Amino acid sequence: MTKEELLKNYQDWRFSCSAYEMALAIIGIDKQTVAPSAGASYRDSRTAYLAGVAFEKRNDPKMKEIMEALLKEDLDETFRKEVEMELKEIKKYQSVPQDFYVAHYERSDASYDAWLKAKKEENFEKFKPYIQGIIEDQKTLISYRDSQKEVYHQLLNDHENEVSIEFYDEFFATIKKELVPLIQKLQAAKQPDTSFLEKEYPIAKQKEFMEEVLKYIHYTKDWGYQNESEHPFTTGICENDLRTTTKYLINNPVSSVLSTVHECGHAYFEHNVHPKFDGTILAKNIKMGIHESQSRLLENYLGRSEAFWQYLYPKFQEIFPEQLKEVPLKQFIWAINRVKPSLVRTEADEVTYPLHILIRYELEKEIFSNRLNVDELEQAWNAKYQEYLGIHADKPSEGILQDVHWSGDGYGYFPTYALGSAISAQIFHTMEQQIDVTEALRTGHFEIIMNWLKENVHQYGASLSFQEILEKCTGERFNIQYYIDYLKIKFNHLYDLD
Amino acid sequence: MTKEELLKNYQDWRFSCSAYEMALAIIGIDKQTVAPSAGASYRDSRTAYLAGVAFEKRNDPKMKEIMEALLKEDLDETFRKEVEMELKEIKKYQSVPQDFYVAHYERSDASYDAWLKAKKEENFEKFKPYIQGIIEDQKTLISYRDSQKEVYHQLLNDHENEVSIEFYDEFFATIKKELVPLIQKLQAAKQPDTSFLEKEYPIAKQKEFMEEVLKYIHYTKDWGYQNESEHPFTTGICENDLRTTTKYLINNPVSSVLSTVHECGHAYFEHNVHPKFDGTILAKNIKMGIHESQSRLLENYLGRSEAFWQYLYPKFQEIFPEQLKEVPLKQFIWAINRVKPSLVRTEADEVTYPLHILIRYELEKEIFSNRLNVDELEQAWNAKYQEYLGIHADKPSEGILQDVHWSGDGYGYFPTYALGSAISAQIFHTMEQQIDVTEALRTGHFEIIMNWLKENVHQYGASLSFQEILEKCTGERFNIQYYIDYLKIKFNHLYDLD
Repeated sequence: MTKEELLKNYQDWRFSCSAYEMALAIIGIDKQTVAPSAGASYRDSRTAYLAGVAFEKRNDPKMKEIMEALLKEDLDETFRKEVEMELKEIKKYQSVPQDFYVAHYERSDASYDAWLKAKKEENFEKFKPYIQGIIEDQKTLISYRDSQKEVYHQLLNDHENEVSIEFYDEFFATIKKELVPLIQKLQAAKQPDTSFLEKEYPIAKQKEFMEEVLKYIHYTKDWGYQNESEHPFTTGICENDLRTTTKYLINNPVSSVLSTVHECGHAYFEHNVHPKFDGTILAKNIKMGIHESQSRLLENYLGRSEAFWQYLYPKFQEIFPEQLKEVPLKQFIWAINRVKPSLVRTEADEVTYPLHILIRYELEKEIFSNRLNVDELEQAWNAKYQEYLGIHADKPSEGILQDVHWSGDGYGYFPTYALGSAISAQIFHTMEQQIDVTEALRTGHFEIIMNWLKENVHQYGASLSFQEILEKCTGERFNIQYYIDYLKIKFNHLYDLD
Repeated sequence: MTKEELLKNYQDWRFSCSAYEMALAIIGIDKQTVAPSAGASYRDSRTAYLAGVAFEKRNDPKMKEIMEALLKEDLDETFRKEVEMELKEIKKYQSVPQDFYVAHYERSDASYDAWLKAKKEENFEKFKPYIQGIIEDQKTLISYRDSQKEVYHQLLNDHENEVSIEFYDEFFATIKKELVPLIQKLQAAKQPDTSFLEKEYPIAKQKEFMEEVLKYIHYTKDWGYQNESEHPFTTGICENDLRTTTKYLINNPVSSVLSTVHECGHAYFEHNVHPKFDGTILAKNIKMGIHESQSRLLENYLGRSEAFWQYLYPKFQEIFPEQLKEVPLKQFIWAINRVKPSLVRTEADEVTYPLHILIRYELEKEIFSNRLNVDELEQAWNAKYQEYLGIHADKPSEGILQDVHWSGDGYGYFPTYALGSAISAQIFHTMEQQIDVTEALRTGHFEIIMNWLKENVHQYGASLSFQEILEKCTGERFNIQYYIDYLKIKFNHLYDLD
């Protein structure tokens, strides 16, 4: 084939793959937001069939040859990177039988439905066969790969480049060493009054306030749409179509705001990727560590800051006068940042949060080294919560069943939340030196911050690794110290322990 | 091939076709309800590609041979009917080139977007090239068929079996002869006060009432989901997944209720089709005349009745005390049934409604016999509204741009609304003899009515024609007299002209 023919073949293939990916993404969003439950088996069996067709197309052996031939041609640097990345991803799945893949896809959908049901019914027993099947599937999928690395190492690498069990062991050792004493110190100090946060905040009113939040962060219907789901998520269709969800809790008016800002951090990343990457793997294959750095940056570094609420709090008080009229801004900020061991990861404060991740990391490591089976999982979960946070879940919905991730392909994903939080400290440190973040938040100029992130992080999409982005943006490779310093300074200050 | 092989091939093909249909349906719903506008071109090009794959699969010449071979085997009656219907549908498209089909699909999506925009901007000029292209496409699509019948005859038949231009000419001649004098007579009589309906009804409150309506008609999230769209519609995924939309108008609190009940009429039909037809063409290929008979039955015969509101009106008053506390039920019922020539079809009363359809029927007939071109269309539209209803649209959004149908494949569809309304009179006449409809509505037992319709109409799906259903259900073929009688009796009574 001539170079032109190779290119034509490649581009046609890329386009048709992206069509199936789009269909599966929209079907997935639909499933998790609005699709009627009784139609699940009809839809899931057909979705799995389409996933199989997409799988076959992506793993077409002819395309592997075409890409290898292309790489022998003279290509521009970006395009070469794209083809190399496609090839690398294909190699992960090329030996997986399509039948197995389709069956796994269908099992994942059924497992998601079973998780939803088990969580509602507070019944982990019912979910056990599903999680068992999904874990086996993960092991089988990995076994088809041409790699001698441990299963969990490979799962970790599926979610972030240049990480390993050693990397995370060291990472979490620092977390444990630095944060456990900090938590103890903060727990011993005078605590903020948070009782006003537990009042009833009618959801219709929360939605009214959400309109203000979405306006403030410029997440508009031109390129985004927010829905609701049991577990908030973001799905990118293309750079101009980023769907997010949130979840409202009647006794926690800040949860939906922070989850919104979190998901919009993901959405902005994909929205701001350089248009030249749109529809290619260099836009799509952003790894989760750097991805979560953006969601966690927006959620915590911005969304829990005083400047953010200086702008929004008067409107919040206006919508909830009874609940908030007696609460000054300072008290509100302290309350929403209160450090207190709690059961639900997504509702955790910034300091205890990485311990939630540490627990999941340790459990996953044991699962995939075959030292922990599903029958022991709930007990192991509860034991670790006791050990690290001194608390115990009375209900599976606040324990082992709280997260969606283990119902599907989310193994090896959790550590990226903690890594992302740490990456964002390093990025935030540089950002604060270059622009006045506080002023931008206080005066309603969120776009100043987003433009800085676009320029320094988002535009690269998947074309750079998180280490490369950090080097370009902050001048050094990943350094956990920024994260530890940030947490110590912020929380000592908040608790008046400077 | 053995019979078993033929069957296996057929069933695999049917399943994979249904998978693509499901994907395209979900993508279509998404587009019309929530999808961000800036992502349209990315999505539409990929949707068109998938539509092409689906088209190729459906029109696979090998499958035509397999079905023809199957029909030579000994098959049970229902299955034979199914295969015959598939074959008949395939023959309509088998000569259409796939490239043309894909291009047409993409043009339809772009045309929908252009219609939305043109309607918003009150600018028919901008929509002209799109509607022009879509009309040309309709003619081209028909030209590939092996039929000597007129283009418009074939379009009419795509939307209902056993109808023709002659059939509709006669149908609308009766409509004109009987209803124009009735409208004149009602217009000359004392009119109800409808001013309270034009007050402001905040949309959040309308949504609160909608919860009551959905509960009353048992449209639940197990098998249905209601969203909003510019033009209300229903899409069936399978018997347990029926999506509907509605549209809220701030100065018309009844519009969203009636459009909801209308769309749920469609949804119930597909939900109640006998499970043995699920996933087959005998469930999917219900023609629009009989389909609209169910939507129009729910909307008008039930939704505009006094018994329906006897149950709901107290809740309606509770939610809108300022607007409705002085309005007794009788006055409310008369007001929502007021006969008055108006511009927007979907908001029209029952008596002027078929004249809106007559206008569209006459225009479509002229378009497809090449006697009317797009440049003359707006003028022709306005002239006919003047002639039949004595009114004139000042804005295209209330005139030529009001309906979604002409932006896509909706040509030949409109007449089924009037036919459906007339069919439902005949069905309703029988139903009233067999169950106490008033009592069921008044006491909140909507399921009694739905069960009757399931038993007598819905269960057959597409396995019987509308004439066959009428014969089974009412004991005679279609007879327009039931419709004329119903309208005369209802409205003479309402206007105290008995």
